[in-house]
Amino acid sequence: MSEKTRLRPGDTIGILGGGQLGRMLAQSAASLGLKTHIFCPDPASPAFDVSDTFTVAPYEDTDALDLFAGAVSVVTYEFENVPGPTAAHLDARVPVRPGVRALEVSQDRLSEKQFLSSAGVAIAGFADINSQADLDAALERLGGKGVLKTRRFGYDGKGQQMIRAAGDAEGAFDKLGAVPAVLEQLIAFDCEVSVIVARDVDGRTACYDLARNHHENHILKTSTVPAGVSESTASAARAMAEQIVTGLDYVGVMGVEMFLVRDGDGERLLVNEIAPRVHNSGHWTQDACLCSQFDQHIRAVAGWPLGSAERHSDAVMENLIGEDTNCWERVLNEANARLHLYGKAEIRSGRKMGHVNRISPKAG
Amino acid sequence: MSEKTRLRPGDTIGILGGGQLGRMLAQSAASLGLKTHIFCPDPASPAFDVSDTFTVAPYEDTDALDLFAGAVSVVTYEFENVPGPTAAHLDARVPVRPGVRALEVSQDRLSEKQFLSSAGVAIAGFADINSQADLDAALERLGGKGVLKTRRFGYDGKGQQMIRAAGDAEGAFDKLGAVPAVLEQLIAFDCEVSVIVARDVDGRTACYDLARNHHENHILKTSTVPAGVSESTASAARAMAEQIVTGLDYVGVMGVEMFLVRDGDGERLLVNEIAPRVHNSGHWTQDACLCSQFDQHIRAVAGWPLGSAERHSDAVMENLIGEDTNCWERVLNEANARLHLYGKAEIRSGRKMGHVNRISPKAG
Repeated sequence: MSEKTRLRPGDTIGILGGGQLGRMLAQSAASLGLKTHIFCPDPASPAFDVSDTFTVAPYEDTDALDLFAGAVSVVTYEFENVPGPTAAHLDARVPVRPGVRALEVSQDRLSEKQFLSSAGVAIAGFADINSQADLDAALERLGGKGVLKTRRFGYDGKGQQMIRAAGDAEGAFDKLGAVPAVLEQLIAFDCEVSVIVARDVDGRTACYDLARNHHENHILKTSTVPAGVSESTASAARAMAEQIVTGLDYVGVMGVEMFLVRDGDGERLLVNEIAPRVHNSGHWTQDACLCSQFDQHIRAVAGWPLGSAERHSDAVMENLIGEDTNCWERVLNEANARLHLYGKAEIRSGRKMGHVNRISPKAG
Repeated sequence: MSEKTRLRPGDTIGILGGGQLGRMLAQSAASLGLKTHIFCPDPASPAFDVSDTFTVAPYEDTDALDLFAGAVSVVTYEFENVPGPTAAHLDARVPVRPGVRALEVSQDRLSEKQFLSSAGVAIAGFADINSQADLDAALERLGGKGVLKTRRFGYDGKGQQMIRAAGDAEGAFDKLGAVPAVLEQLIAFDCEVSVIVARDVDGRTACYDLARNHHENHILKTSTVPAGVSESTASAARAMAEQIVTGLDYVGVMGVEMFLVRDGDGERLLVNEIAPRVHNSGHWTQDACLCSQFDQHIRAVAGWPLGSAERHSDAVMENLIGEDTNCWERVLNEANARLHLYGKAEIRSGRKMGHVNRISPKAG
């Protein structure tokens, strides 16, 4: 359903997924006077604690989905791997925002790259890989190096293989599970940056300032704003992000990850990946902007006008992963730090437990 | 119970009262990884939507209080009129913060004024009134003018009578209900200001910048920061606020209302009233400080160190009272405004429905 439904205070937003992103969306919704109903199969979902209502059911349970659709004014999601049939079932009953098309595109690395190319956005070279022969041919074309990734369900470095030499390529397709894959050209990039972009039901867009992202063990560790890029690069990043959300007729917040390449030609950007949801690299907006990415997404999916994406402070966001979270007491003693914890009972290696935003007055 | 209980993430704070202040406290607690359990007789409490657990029971229900005390690590409250026996019952079982003494003092205008005087804080003249004869004598002493207020349970202008002339005084004690009262000297003040002060379990204090308050129909309408007072006046205000919380061995956030008097001697302050809780005139801290008054109160009652009370922006908070809340759509179109709605279903005249914080870069 795509009509311009606009919510009123007191109306309910349905959220698929009950993790920390759903939790922070529910918190923003509440402070804007909207109710939330979380749908998640996991009975220990962190988002349940802060929502008005929740449903524990598999995403395939159409009876539960029907009740959910009947109880909410609009549906959004906190993760891009919402099963296609779930999204389609809901979309026939209630507006789903950002939208089914955004899910289709971002669930499949090949579709995503094809869409991005067609939208006129700069990306790294890639190839469709359905066999070892496809891989060998593509490697020849892309200079013998690349990253082989499953087309579907990869995240945080899972479902990937790095190919730097002929030995890495041998049998790589089978090692990945002999599933449909893409080969991505290996880019010698300076760093990863990301843009949090939003689009409302009337097609207006807003972009937050670029963040420079640093990963550890394939998991985002810090996002720093300002990112330290030139104004022309920042402007190009915003333009690409806006092209993407406009091309998808998108409603909501999207995270757009880009590689910053610095070579003889100066700075340029290649879009690496899009996430059709609020994004970890946008958590800094909670404490450095009047309107956080969570507020912004709620406003957009509610059919409300976007807020200002302006930033009042410089910021560094640090993820608290696994045992990192034991630093909470130390963080509480830092004057310029705001601790955010997700209420997860169990510490597990690699699990996102919370984050810290450190802010400082805007330089210059 | 007064020992230095310190909570850990995942522990539960009990909150007496389920209005908007309890709601915003619960929201801060959740974002700091703490759970909340709201206790309130009203089944339609706005705070229930965002808390982990809630109990609907009268404050006099000792069985319900026992279960509540057993389920939480510490108890706080969002309103000063918590019945004395309720506070005492809980205090025998679990730490109650800010504390029973703060409630006793602030529930009774006479005790409050006596405490403030003894703490060496400047206040307006006052008299203990238990009869019309007391009133007549006190008026003679205080220049024939004053505000007659019930000792207990007055708020937002209720339970008060202004006496400006002899005619107003006639029968005034009976008109107020012939209940124990105080007469306050009428002060020709320039404006009301307030300080939000906090104190932690180790006795450290922190003060937010002064706000200048404007009332309409005896209800706070706006709070503006900076307040436009001299640095020496601001410093005197902070010193008095700190004397008060230290004198009460207070743990948590307190709102201290003061009259700013400008006369031949320059600027001076008289403390008007204290509120042993987060305060409406501190809502601006949500969007102009990294650590809001709600975060600060949660940190203090959790036995955690205080956050910085520093302000990154200038701010004006506007209350949305009754039909005011219908402006929500217009507010969403203002770039520098953040809408906060309390999720109250029914609009009633004089009811606080939400507020708006408008921020701007710090001047100077």
